[in-house]
Amino acid sequence: MSSSTGQLFRIATWGESHGGGVGVVIDGCLPQLELSEADIQAELDRRRPGQSDIVTPRKEADRCEILSGVFQGRTLGTPIAILVRNEDARPEAYREMETAFRPSHADFTYQAKYGIRNWQGGGRSSARETIGRVAAGVVARKVLAVLHPGIEVVAWVSRVHQVESSVDPATVSASAIEANAVRCPDAAAAERMIARIKEARSDGDSVGGLLECVVRGCPAGLGEPVFDKLEADLAKAMLSLPATKGFEIGSGFEGTKLTGHEHNDAFEMRGGRTRTVTNRSGGVQGGISNGEDIVFRVAFKPTATIAKVQRTVTADGENTELAARGRHDPCVLPRAVPIVEAMVWLVLCDHALRQRAQGAVAS
Amino acid sequence: MSSSTGQLFRIATWGESHGGGVGVVIDGCLPQLELSEADIQAELDRRRPGQSDIVTPRKEADRCEILSGVFQGRTLGTPIAILVRNEDARPEAYREMETAFRPSHADFTYQAKYGIRNWQGGGRSSARETIGRVAAGVVARKVLAVLHPGIEVVAWVSRVHQVESSVDPATVSASAIEANAVRCPDAAAAERMIARIKEARSDGDSVGGLLECVVRGCPAGLGEPVFDKLEADLAKAMLSLPATKGFEIGSGFEGTKLTGHEHNDAFEMRGGRTRTVTNRSGGVQGGISNGEDIVFRVAFKPTATIAKVQRTVTADGENTELAARGRHDPCVLPRAVPIVEAMVWLVLCDHALRQRAQGAVAS
Amino acid sequence: MSSSTGQLFRIATWGESHGGGVGVVIDGCLPQLELSEADIQAELDRRRPGQSDIVTPRKEADRCEILSGVFQGRTLGTPIAILVRNEDARPEAYREMETAFRPSHADFTYQAKYGIRNWQGGGRSSARETIGRVAAGVVARKVLAVLHPGIEVVAWVSRVHQVESSVDPATVSASAIEANAVRCPDAAAAERMIARIKEARSDGDSVGGLLECVVRGCPAGLGEPVFDKLEADLAKAMLSLPATKGFEIGSGFEGTKLTGHEHNDAFEMRGGRTRTVTNRSGGVQGGISNGEDIVFRVAFKPTATIAKVQRTVTADGENTELAARGRHDPCVLPRAVPIVEAMVWLVLCDHALRQRAQGAVAS
Amino acid sequence: MSSSTGQLFRIATWGESHGGGVGVVIDGCLPQLELSEADIQAELDRRRPGQSDIVTPRKEADRCEILSGVFQGRTLGTPIAILVRNEDARPEAYREMETAFRPSHADFTYQAKYGIRNWQGGGRSSARETIGRVAAGVVARKVLAVLHPGIEVVAWVSRVHQVESSVDPATVSASAIEANAVRCPDAAAAERMIARIKEARSDGDSVGGLLECVVRGCPAGLGEPVFDKLEADLAKAMLSLPATKGFEIGSGFEGTKLTGHEHNDAFEMRGGRTRTVTNRSGGVQGGISNGEDIVFRVAFKPTATIAKVQRTVTADGENTELAARGRHDPCVLPRAVPIVEAMVWLVLCDHALRQRAQGAVAS
Repeated sequence: MSSSTGQLFRIATWGESHGGGVGVVIDGCLPQLELSEADIQAELDRRRPGQSDIVTPRKEADRCEILSGVFQGRTLGTPIAILVRNEDARPEAYREMETAFRPSHADFTYQAKYGIRNWQGGGRSSARETIGRVAAGVVARKVLAVLHPGIEVVAWVSRVHQVESSVDPATVSASAIEANAVRCPDAAAAERMIARIKEARSDGDSVGGLLECVVRGCPAGLGEPVFDKLEADLAKAMLSLPATKGFEIGSGFEGTKLTGHEHNDAFEMRGGRTRTVTNRSGGVQGGISNGEDIVFRVAFKPTATIAKVQRTVTADGENTELAARGRHDPCVLPRAVPIVEAMVWLVLCDHALRQRAQGAVAS
Repeated sequence: MSSSTGQLFRIATWGESHGGGVGVVIDGCLPQLELSEADIQAELDRRRPGQSDIVTPRKEADRCEILSGVFQGRTLGTPIAILVRNEDARPEAYREMETAFRPSHADFTYQAKYGIRNWQGGGRSSARETIGRVAAGVVARKVLAVLHPGIEVVAWVSRVHQVESSVDPATVSASAIEANAVRCPDAAAAERMIARIKEARSDGDSVGGLLECVVRGCPAGLGEPVFDKLEADLAKAMLSLPATKGFEIGSGFEGTKLTGHEHNDAFEMRGGRTRTVTNRSGGVQGGISNGEDIVFRVAFKPTATIAKVQRTVTADGENTELAARGRHDPCVLPRAVPIVEAMVWLVLCDHALRQRAQGAVAS
Repeated sequence: MSSSTGQLFRIATWGESHGGGVGVVIDGCLPQLELSEADIQAELDRRRPGQSDIVTPRKEADRCEILSGVFQGRTLGTPIAILVRNEDARPEAYREMETAFRPSHADFTYQAKYGIRNWQGGGRSSARETIGRVAAGVVARKVLAVLHPGIEVVAWVSRVHQVESSVDPATVSASAIEANAVRCPDAAAAERMIARIKEARSDGDSVGGLLECVVRGCPAGLGEPVFDKLEADLAKAMLSLPATKGFEIGSGFEGTKLTGHEHNDAFEMRGGRTRTVTNRSGGVQGGISNGEDIVFRVAFKPTATIAKVQRTVTADGENTELAARGRHDPCVLPRAVPIVEAMVWLVLCDHALRQRAQGAVAS
Repeated sequence: MSSSTGQLFRIATWGESHGGGVGVVIDGCLPQLELSEADIQAELDRRRPGQSDIVTPRKEADRCEILSGVFQGRTLGTPIAILVRNEDARPEAYREMETAFRPSHADFTYQAKYGIRNWQGGGRSSARETIGRVAAGVVARKVLAVLHPGIEVVAWVSRVHQVESSVDPATVSASAIEANAVRCPDAAAAERMIARIKEARSDGDSVGGLLECVVRGCPAGLGEPVFDKLEADLAKAMLSLPATKGFEIGSGFEGTKLTGHEHNDAFEMRGGRTRTVTNRSGGVQGGISNGEDIVFRVAFKPTATIAKVQRTVTADGENTELAARGRHDPCVLPRAVPIVEAMVWLVLCDHALRQRAQGAVAS
């Protein structure tokens, strides 16, 4: 039961990269919301392969079909099942993975855990699995649009390999992020990032980087201590994505070099509300949102599957070498942007429903 | 239901810093394990206040009582309830918090979420809550000692404020960590850390830092894709602790500056097993342990409660100033060491039971 | 994790009949509700031993202590831990159960499952465990008093052995039930029931019977298809109680002898609401409450522990005989009344919170 | 999240009777098991409409497609998604249900709960939903065949309306049950049952009845006190099925008329094992299987949808009359047999995995 997540807005994803398809079942959606396949398709198009010349050329339209839970254009409150067929599967390109484990990929660990794996592509560990997450994220966003109108979730690529950018979380816009293929709103940096990715691909190599995300307009009071703190659920959501190695919120790792007096966010009354003067907390205090912008960063390692020759071993325990064929992203970050946003919508939606259930009755 | 965690080895903690006490109910422990109050007390003593001159002087023996689930020195397989009474409560030291919110503490967000809070001490957000976690961690360790003998979990303070240390995760020992009050096994660095903490206290200020942890001897195959990946559950566990702002595993944030070819951990046969030549993965690939050392780091911000005067607001929406009294740790990291270890035992135990349930039947 | 129940209003009970005590942790209570130990004690007194001459003479005051989650008389929204110490434990009365399994009791199956059991009394299978349920039921009732004022839950003993009663669920009152020791509101039947129970006790035997329960004032819309239908959760709650063998709702088993046309509850407008003319559905249709009275019945077998000599076997696999000593209820039904009511409050509260979370937003 | 069930062997069903289809996602299946669409189809054929002249004539082949989780004929340990398209949907036959609520059906309560419903057919409350359960049951049975070979689950129709049968649970065989259209292994009774069902249909009416089920070969030790007792989970599973009104295990309701001495199952050594002389417990004691046959009965009310004219009200609150068109089962019991069996496989599988996780380590 490890392919489902969420307490009240609960999703269950399924599917391998090579097989009948991938999808998701969403259980716990509010009834009466408008929902169409077009709504979902728009976000799937942001994550699909082949969308630009810096991502994998795998040809997948990733057309979604809503199989249940919607009637005459509105949600029923019953489970919403969404299906995307696999189309451009080329298992022959993975023949060598049948026996040899790709270094730093999930081939070996899946074999160790299950004693069997779908070696055609990444199987269950493929990023295709995130299609279900992105589809569900659209539905979560619809729920929040009703419960807490005004929440914005914006993620962007803030570093590729060693190419840094400069972006202000308080003002960055979704349109600026979509303005280029690498999804970095700093246009000058974006150009260098794109060049760096192309260089990696022509080297038969890959690069990683840093993704940053801001949530604006989140009300105070979301997050469930002590175990389901908002930052804990965000961290889990991010570390559940392929290729992630780290998460930090607000001042993060750097903030640990300040003293308490330097680091604390003083409170002040502003606009009739309790506000913080600074935001080193990153919008969360004691595991609960405080109404300020939620800001966090996620580390993505370089793609494991590369064309360069690497040392490895076979399933039979022989040392060997491997140079991957197949179609791979030389850098996962541009396509990770809509995925990270989807995970944030899912976490916020679940927490908003939990708070709706258990918040005090207005007296 | 946010004060319980774990799928199979499930714990529910309860308690405020000022009230009847704190404790935990552990549901899902294997039967027939030897368990005594002394086993648990040993770990509680590692986290209790007043244990050295760099931690809070609050006087709490933190004596635990096992109320159920154990019969004639052995676990019954039924819920194990553990109680620790609060003793040295001094609510009068918190009188000013009844009205003023401590900056960067949970006072404001608890009020925003629940509309009520126990302002005597940290209430539910107090680190006293972690007593239940530490007690449960002892039981988890006992389960693992039976299922996977040989697992070691060792955490240490690797940086305090800007005082760095040099420690090798492959060889660091528990006894070296317990050799000084700050729990840093680099003795020279430890001295400087202790000095830095004392300086912060005499300034009425506080410091944060970095905690590192290694798991040695973990078998390959633990971790449950896609949502309950091992690193995802570790990240959530760490970010559920008070004062944490970041988590990274293996190469973490720095690793994102390497290319795939530089970063990938080549496989080789060694000692008859599939091993990695390097360990940038940090012991986890595709969300599943690969049998190498699991290595991760956690960022702890400086303690929010400080004696220096700070700007803040009252519950009634008035700007004011606050200088905390009460007894606080000028640096939470030394006492966080056993807490982090406990959370790791809990996560590993839960995953070991899950794998025990769903692993292939040996043919 | 089988000692916790509820999705949003989640309780975890713990404790054996002979040991430190029994109790419960309640996680998910609304904040700001008035709650005192006296509130809880009142219900515990309804289930405690020694309350009349037809129940076990075990002397237990069953005094409860609220350890957390309440501050200045109001709930905090944090876990509420409640403890009741065991007092009148007499393990020596159970010495023969150390080796011999009581017929139709849980001795053998606990041993088979766990390989160990607390043979002093019923251990975890003792009805003392239900103390935690009754305490939690009081809190659930408080939540519902705020969310859906006007709900009444009334259970009563409708048959003891072969002594039937005549009671109208639509009008039966709590005070009529408390008017006699057997908790049957039909006074004439109650007298015969009491006589029958005393006869059983003097025979060294025991009797079972039927318990009936009505919920009045429940709003339409509670219950969560397809698996967590309201009647499904009620059935599970009832069959989780010691000694229960059956559950039926509305027309139940007898109703299966009618045709659809005879059985269906016609709808009509009445008092401006959609009402049913009859109530064979028992207040639930399609797994969701319809606003009519919820009426169900629970079968309780005769107490397994009796003084008469019985054939059995020892833990070592020898045939033997056993005549129980110890203090036992010759009939569990009178004390089961508050326990059944508590379980209903728990189920309704959980469903009310679930509906609060996921009901449509008013437009 | 009410359309998923199971702790370790977790299924999530989805789908309405009129819409894209119905299906299930199974999460938690052991890896390396042989599984094919043909395995599943065999059971779906037992529950599909149009299989005989006493069930609904709706024409549905109910062809299943496995979309994920299986590779080269074996399970991967990843989620198994199964899809069945809806084919013979005739929404026009339900036009009058758009406005009028069918008595004793879920129309009114779905409207009350969600404020919207798919009125074309039963929507989510349709028995078509159980297709996912039956498909998942096949997979559960495969897991148990590996963990506990020898378990048999056999259900049959034991009464239709007032036509009783005589069947011995200890010896009844699956083939005897499949020998006639009504699935009653008492051939003479079966004939009368079939006649009674045809009579009901020609009257435009419907009938209910009693279904009985036996589990043979179940090991002792399954069931998880205190809340997830085996009989509690069976009761919930049964009451989650459409049209069920009651559940009883072993001696059930009738057993409550015996004294303890009459009712208790004496233990004896037999065949080297601890056995009971009688089986009034129905194979479960204290919530845990005792190794004897598990025997229980389920009450199914007569089908709500009938052709006879009935009083009802409209969604607008007007009194009206309704005579259902559409294609309905005049008696749900024959098709309920494979559904009940599937639910039992699901419950047993989940409990077997839970016991596998938490049973004592063999010393």
